[in-house]
Order: sequence, then structure tokens, then C-alpha cells
Amino acid sequence: MSETLPLQITGGRVPTFTTTVYEPRDDALVGRMDRLAVEEPLEIRLQVRDAPASTISITMRTPGHDFELVAGFLLTEGIVSSLEDIRKIAYCVDADLDEEQRYNVVTAELHHEPGRASIERLVMTSSACGVCGTASIESVRLAGHPPYGDGPYLDISVLRRFPELLNAGQRAFASTGGLHGVALISTDGEVLALREDVGRHNAVDKVLGWALLGKRMPLSSTCLFVSGRISFEIVQKAVRAGIPIIAAVSAATSLAAKLAQDRNLTLVGFLRGDRCTVYSGRERLLAAPAEHVASP
Amino acid sequence: MSETLPLQITGGRVPTFTTTVYEPRDDALVGRMDRLAVEEPLEIRLQVRDAPASTISITMRTPGHDFELVAGFLLTEGIVSSLEDIRKIAYCVDADLDEEQRYNVVTAELHHEPGRASIERLVMTSSACGVCGTASIESVRLAGHPPYGDGPYLDISVLRRFPELLNAGQRAFASTGGLHGVALISTDGEVLALREDVGRHNAVDKVLGWALLGKRMPLSSTCLFVSGRISFEIVQKAVRAGIPIIAAVSAATSLAAKLAQDRNLTLVGFLRGDRCTVYSGRERLLAAPAEHVASP
Repeated sequence: MSETLPLQITGGRVPTFTTTVYEPRDDALVGRMDRLAVEEPLEIRLQVRDAPASTISITMRTPGHDFELVAGFLLTEGIVSSLEDIRKIAYCVDADLDEEQRYNVVTAELHHEPGRASIERLVMTSSACGVCGTASIESVRLAGHPPYGDGPYLDISVLRRFPELLNAGQRAFASTGGLHGVALISTDGEVLALREDVGRHNAVDKVLGWALLGKRMPLSSTCLFVSGRISFEIVQKAVRAGIPIIAAVSAATSLAAKLAQDRNLTLVGFLRGDRCTVYSGRERLLAAPAEHVASP
Repeated sequence: MSETLPLQITGGRVPTFTTTVYEPRDDALVGRMDRLAVEEPLEIRLQVRDAPASTISITMRTPGHDFELVAGFLLTEGIVSSLEDIRKIAYCVDADLDEEQRYNVVTAELHHEPGRASIERLVMTSSACGVCGTASIESVRLAGHPPYGDGPYLDISVLRRFPELLNAGQRAFASTGGLHGVALISTDGEVLALREDVGRHNAVDKVLGWALLGKRMPLSSTCLFVSGRISFEIVQKAVRAGIPIIAAVSAATSLAAKLAQDRNLTLVGFLRGDRCTVYSGRERLLAAPAEHVASP
């Protein structure tokens, strides 16, 4: 029944919100119009065949690409493992929701009951499952992708281009300064998908949902590039989606680095200018030949 | 019974994690030791008198100031409204938890059953309660602090010093580059509390928990200064704690600005150098007299 899945997504435009803001100038506050990144709640409901739908998450997100967000969320939270598990994703048509609310409620219909553990964990928390880092890493080991093998390989010269590739595509950020950007980039430097959101985890889910809905899985020769910091949750999402390389503009946390090391995933932070910090999986990075070789 | 409350907190030191990282240099990856911000899950359990404790949240946080984090979380999620509601906050002593896990589980004992709605909402989501922004703002109106009146007033010259005050106190950030910093600052520029965490919302909760446990409430003449962006959730937490002024280094989202405007809270973003953007409540900001007055 996956032909009923609305693969075409909910608008590529990232909305902005315009309001009057004030800036100090000499001894006065001077007004001007400014554009802000839009933040709205999204309620995700899960329905299995004809059973009643139940709410499994409410997340604050930037509207747009909502079905990708939901698909990516289902994948990275371990509720579905492939597109075949999903019967339909649609906005809610409850008569008691008004127009504004209706586009903030998405129902995902599944063919089969998901594992009970994944739902219970989800209702409790959006990002962790153990009561210590070791248990959290263990749970990803049990639920996630098998450990990565050798490869794919990525030229450091390609890696260095990730920030400019993201900046070139991040239009809403340029106008609001308030969005996280995440790109899925092939190891030869092609941007496959780029999404923006007020929440970094949402932007990751949108990119991964794009891949799931567009039948681009597996992602075993792609890299995830993230505009900010890398937490455990971001690495966990990448592992669930089978992505072998993550890079980011800012720092990784201890638990993000430990999970990447445990799973043999390549993790790169502080990717700025000609600098970067490799936390894990350096074997996949191919250093460019030295440009200046001393003549004999 | 609040004399049994361990007011003295779980270590002021923000831990770091040391690991080997690699950096590209010419055609090689060169190793060095680096310090990373520590991220570990914290499970929060709630117990009312002698009933069994139940888990209400698992959050990824930087260890340290854990009791402040829990107290602030209880306050800003609307589970308690004053220190008198809390009987005790302590690490878990379950025999089946090992040493590492034990310091990742905190139990809060309350004198009375909290409102059912606040718990149900909490289990569903950590940041939103309606299915549209209007409903979210309405829920804060119902549950939060009454609308702010006039004042307090803040000199823009004091506001401009917030970034240097935060930087001066943010020691762990300087060594890891991976932590959010949040400071509670008086309107005359005194830093009352400063906390760091991998999660911005946790750093806010730690600062507010410091105030609650230290009997510093109400916070009606203080400002909250945040190192990153301002989402709805951050404004919601400030409103629940009665803070009238929020400033941040980066942008505010649409819903953060709308909530601030609705509640008459002062919201300032992009506070960098001699620049800032005032989204709401500019009446509380006192522009400095012009420094260069043209002679007649």
C-alpha cells in the first residue's frame, strides 16, 4: 500500500515570520522590520491498521518538510526499519482541529505494531535510554546498524568544502540567523539533501526522512554535515540510518565521541577554514598529497 | 521538612573528558589530547510521600549541579511552584544500580501530588503543550507567572556587558568549546549564578534551580543571559520563574518572540559588540545618553 504514501513533501519553502524589532542607536531604540525563524509544535500520532491513533511525540519544529520529519523520526527512533513498514503519512483531518492546528498534527499509519520497547522509551524521553552513557551506547548497539566496516573513503579536500556547500544552500538562515542546517553529502561532494530547522535533531530527521521516503537507503556512502555541535542523539540518529561519516562546525560531546568510537563511525568536529578535529574513524579520511614538495 | 533538602549542590566543577583526537597537517593526521564536554543521561524520578517513585524524564546533561537541575526542571515544568512543595532531592540508592548509574538517577520527593495535567504533558513532551503556537502561548498564560508590569529597568550599557560577564565565568567552555552557558544577572550587572551544560535548557534549569534551592525567589529584578539562540522553551522557563528580561547571543524564534510579546517580557537577541536586536519589552531598556553631543 506504499503507493498511498504522499512522497511529495509539504513545501520546500522554509517559512519566516516578520515582526518589528528595535535596535539601539545613539540614545534611542530605532524600529525596523526583521524576519525570524518560524517555530511551531508538531504532534506526531501513530496508528496501526484500524486501531485508534495515539500521540507519540510533540516536537517544536520549523514547518515544512513535515512528512520527511515524521519519517526520519520513525526511522531514527527505531519505530520503523524500512519504508515498507509505513502505510501512510498524512496531516490530521480531525474536525475538532482548526486550520492552524491541522497542519501541526501528522498521523503515521504503520502496517504492523512496532516493538513495544521502542514506544515506551519514546514516551519517556526523546534522546536517551539508559541511566548511564555505557547503557546508552549499549542500547544503540542492540538496536542500531551493525558496526561499520572499512570505507567509504573521503578526501579531506572534499570534507573541507562541506561548510561552503551548506552555506550556499542555507537560504533561510541567511535571512533569520536562527536555523540549524543539516546536509546529506556524498563522498564525492554532491549535496543530496539539505534541510533547516530551529531544532538540530529535526533537521537531521528531515534529511534522513527524505532519504527513506525517496528510497535512497542505505546511506552507506554518504556523510551527514551539521551546522552546530554534535551530541549523542545526533550520532545515534546517524547510526540508526547507517551513515558512516558525520562532520560538524562545532564540538562533539564525550558521549557522541564514545558512541562513534564504539561503532567505528567517522566523527569530525570544528570543521572551519583549513582546520578540523577528528574524534573517531580517521581511517576513512584521505589526506590530500602535500601541495608543496621540496625540490631536491 | 525542607531542612532535609540537600541544598548544597553536587560539585561546582564541570567535568571534562579527555581523549585523543587527530588533526590534518600537510598530508597526515596528527594526534593530540583534547578535552570534550561531558554528556551523560540523567533520569529524574518523582515520589509523593510513600508512593513508589516514577520516572518523569530522562535528559542528556553535563554532570554537576544535578540537584539544581532537577529543582529547576520541577519549577519550569510547572510541577512545583515553590521550595515548600519539595520534601527532598537525592541520588538514587537502588541496590541494582552500579556506581556509574547511581549518580545519573535523582529522586525528588514532593509533599503533595502535583497537578495531573503537568505530569501528563511532561511524559508526552518536554517543550510544548498545544498543537499550535497560539495554544502553546495560551497554556503558558494559564500556568505561568502573571503578566509582567512596568520595570525593572536595565541600562543598555549594563546589557552590553553581559557577554563579557558570561565569558569570564565560562571556564569549561574555554577548554572544550562544547557547552552552553547561562547566567542569571541582576539589573545592576552582578552575576548571581552561572551554569554550563551540553543542553541549553539544562543550563537554564540549573540557574533557576540554584535560585529556588537558595531561596532567591522571586526573580523579578533579574535577567537571564543565554549563550545561544532563544526558543519558545527558554522563554517559557523564564516566564514560569518570573524573570522579566532575557538576552542572548543569537536569534530568537517566532514563537519565542510571540510569547515574550504576549507576556510583556523583554527579549533581546544578537547581543554582540555594540549591537543587539530587541524583540519585545523595549520599555525596560534605558538607552545611555548620547556620548557625542554636537556643540552649538
